[in-house]
Amino acid sequence: MILREATRQDLPAVLALLGDEDTVLDPTTITVGEAHERAFAAIGADPRNEMLVLTDGTDGTGTVVLGCLQLTYIPGLARNGQERALVEAVRVRADRRGAGLGAELMRLAAERARERGCGLIQLTSGKRRTAAHRFYERLGFARSHEGFKLRLEP
Amino acid sequence: MILREATRQDLPAVLALLGDEDTVLDPTTITVGEAHERAFAAIGADPRNEMLVLTDGTDGTGTVVLGCLQLTYIPGLARNGQERALVEAVRVRADRRGAGLGAELMRLAAERARERGCGLIQLTSGKRRTAAHRFYERLGFARSHEGFKLRLEP
Repeated sequence: MILREATRQDLPAVLALLGDEDTVLDPTTITVGEAHERAFAAIGADPRNEMLVLTDGTDGTGTVVLGCLQLTYIPGLARNGQERALVEAVRVRADRRGAGLGAELMRLAAERARERGCGLIQLTSGKRRTAAHRFYERLGFARSHEGFKLRLEP
Repeated sequence: MILREATRQDLPAVLALLGDEDTVLDPTTITVGEAHERAFAAIGADPRNEMLVLTDGTDGTGTVVLGCLQLTYIPGLARNGQERALVEAVRVRADRRGAGLGAELMRLAAERARERGCGLIQLTSGKRRTAAHRFYERLGFARSHEGFKLRLEP
């Protein structure tokens, strides 16, 4: 099991994961729109953003995407100038849950952030996702904050 | 009242705000360490990060820093490829609270993110900061998520 940066070939599988959390969508049925292409390229070009995929390969060539998440490395003045890592878009394939893949995904992500020198890794999870909350607490995360969001209209 | 990018001259005042939330520290007593210099330069050099200060000037030259926050613009595959804005390090000078400066700071930040094309602005606030929670809810933010953090040891 490895966590590696997503390539353009992985993009349909990543969009399949993001598109419906509880259904296994066939990546070949996914339409990759222009906005997706632009956003994926923007993530790839930004040295502080990574779209990562968990695959079954051990050599970086695994092509079956079992899970994904995005890491954003945020520079800041606190914690002696250490970056913090923000996690978004965490997904594990619906038909592969319950086998520890999510924990492995998060463990590898935290290890990646730690190796980069981040002092903190953080994420938010919707209030109603109580199973996810227990999952993050089991991994050692402290549920220490309230998460606020405001939609912005164009 | 304007919100503008912090310059190097503002850095001691920003560190004074970040250093002690409830005391007005004299910026001239602040030691700007090498880690602070590096982190401030990293924020300034990153097109997706801004350290912003609220000042009393109307022409961008105001030098009294009344508040600050950091915005990080995060590219992503959701929401048709729109960026989201993450807010960190929100502070208002302790001796100027209760006069609406915090609301103005957040209003200007949301407007800045909206003008950039962000579809969402988000932040987390410590569980015990109940006055802050009411403040964000009054500004229209939905307290929709739980915030998780995990410290990473080097």
